[in-house]
Amino acid sequence: MPQERMTIVVFSGEMDRVMAAFILATTAAAMGLEVCMFFTFWGLNVLRKKKFTAGKTLLQKMMNTLNRGGAGRLPLSKFQMLGLGPIMMKALMAHSRVPTIPELVSQAKALGVKFIACTTTFQFMGFDKDDFIEGVDAYAGAATFLDDVLDGKVSYFI
Amino acid sequence: MPQERMTIVVFSGEMDRVMAAFILATTAAAMGLEVCMFFTFWGLNVLRKKKFTAGKTLLQKMMNTLNRGGAGRLPLSKFQMLGLGPIMMKALMAHSRVPTIPELVSQAKALGVKFIACTTTFQFMGFDKDDFIEGVDAYAGAATFLDDVLDGKVSYFI
Amino acid sequence: MPQERMTIVVFSGEMDRVMAAFILATTAAAMGLEVCMFFTFWGLNVLRKKKFTAGKTLLQKMMNTLNRGGAGRLPLSKFQMLGLGPIMMKALMAHSRVPTIPELVSQAKALGVKFIACTTTFQFMGFDKDDFIEGVDAYAGAATFLDDVLDGKVSYFI
Repeated sequence: MPQERMTIVVFSGEMDRVMAAFILATTAAAMGLEVCMFFTFWGLNVLRKKKFTAGKTLLQKMMNTLNRGGAGRLPLSKFQMLGLGPIMMKALMAHSRVPTIPELVSQAKALGVKFIACTTTFQFMGFDKDDFIEGVDAYAGAATFLDDVLDGKVSYFI
Repeated sequence: MPQERMTIVVFSGEMDRVMAAFILATTAAAMGLEVCMFFTFWGLNVLRKKKFTAGKTLLQKMMNTLNRGGAGRLPLSKFQMLGLGPIMMKALMAHSRVPTIPELVSQAKALGVKFIACTTTFQFMGFDKDDFIEGVDAYAGAATFLDDVLDGKVSYFI
Repeated sequence: MPQERMTIVVFSGEMDRVMAAFILATTAAAMGLEVCMFFTFWGLNVLRKKKFTAGKTLLQKMMNTLNRGGAGRLPLSKFQMLGLGPIMMKALMAHSRVPTIPELVSQAKALGVKFIACTTTFQFMGFDKDDFIEGVDAYAGAATFLDDVLDGKVSYFI
């Protein structure tokens, strides 16, 4: 039997949604599926280094001042409470030994999960390849990702 | 022809998103599909009883004070307006005879829709089986749910 | 080989999520797939004309005062900042020559993408067919859409 494939569009950059995406991805990879994740819009923040990304134009600088990257400091989709919510959530998860997002990113890479960073978002946000972590397998657009999707069994938009 | 299956990850706990999930689930079940819903993160609130769930640790008590359960009192994803939005939405729906979430939950059970409650979320939020309504078919993790997904035809993340 | 089909539930009415939906839809259609989009809840705003939609009852008038339609003035899912966020995002995208939502809607129609407007939402929000743009192929419920989904290869909920 050929290997089944799961593909996930990671559109959201919120800790809880990103965690759900990575739990599905790493569980599927551990079950022997081929997994491909396409990071676009706010989801790209997961793959950005923690350092400040300036961008090139004034507008990009303004947007990037608001829209901070780094897998370890994503906001929550609710109960953000000026940063208190994510701290509570991280503490709850640590107490139950649920892995953190940076740990899930490492697990995903160790299990061979493929990461594609969306070039369309990349360009209009003014990012540079140097702003991203190692482990990005490809910088590509939706057409490249859809080739993977069409060969796959399951696809999510998160 | 073997029976087709639809699976849905219910991640969101907002009235409007949960309603969309249940309309898809009950419509598919009424068309003869096998349907399996996996409730995780905020989606677990749909399956919680309306009573207050304390949790075990101080952090769990703090989170559960914010994050209230009960299918009948879910917030809206927009226009929440301190609770006025959900009241307006419920009135609009009642006027058009759209079923409420508790009614959709009952319809889903009557149509044989399978409910899985995510054990990972369950544990870090400090829930107890006693906090949940009857009708939960299984308490399990992502691996068990993915077995159902891989045998299925369609899968959504909501 | 029969033509593959992609189906998308457009639940969200936010500019960034709607843009992701249309980029997937138009890319897939340009690759030769048959694409069907089902607009429901806040997603219906994409297909509404920019004019004010009153509705019939007082509650509908109240909701429609908050919930404005028109593909050209959708809010952002984050950094809304009283309307400044969408202006910044539109400027960023124009600078990179990313098409606007009204342009993506036209491209989708030119590529033969099928638009279904959800009749359930339509009714409880008090909309009228006259409130919608040309290009809506059908006004139907979830059962009609699920027929398309079950014949398809990939399905998203956005």
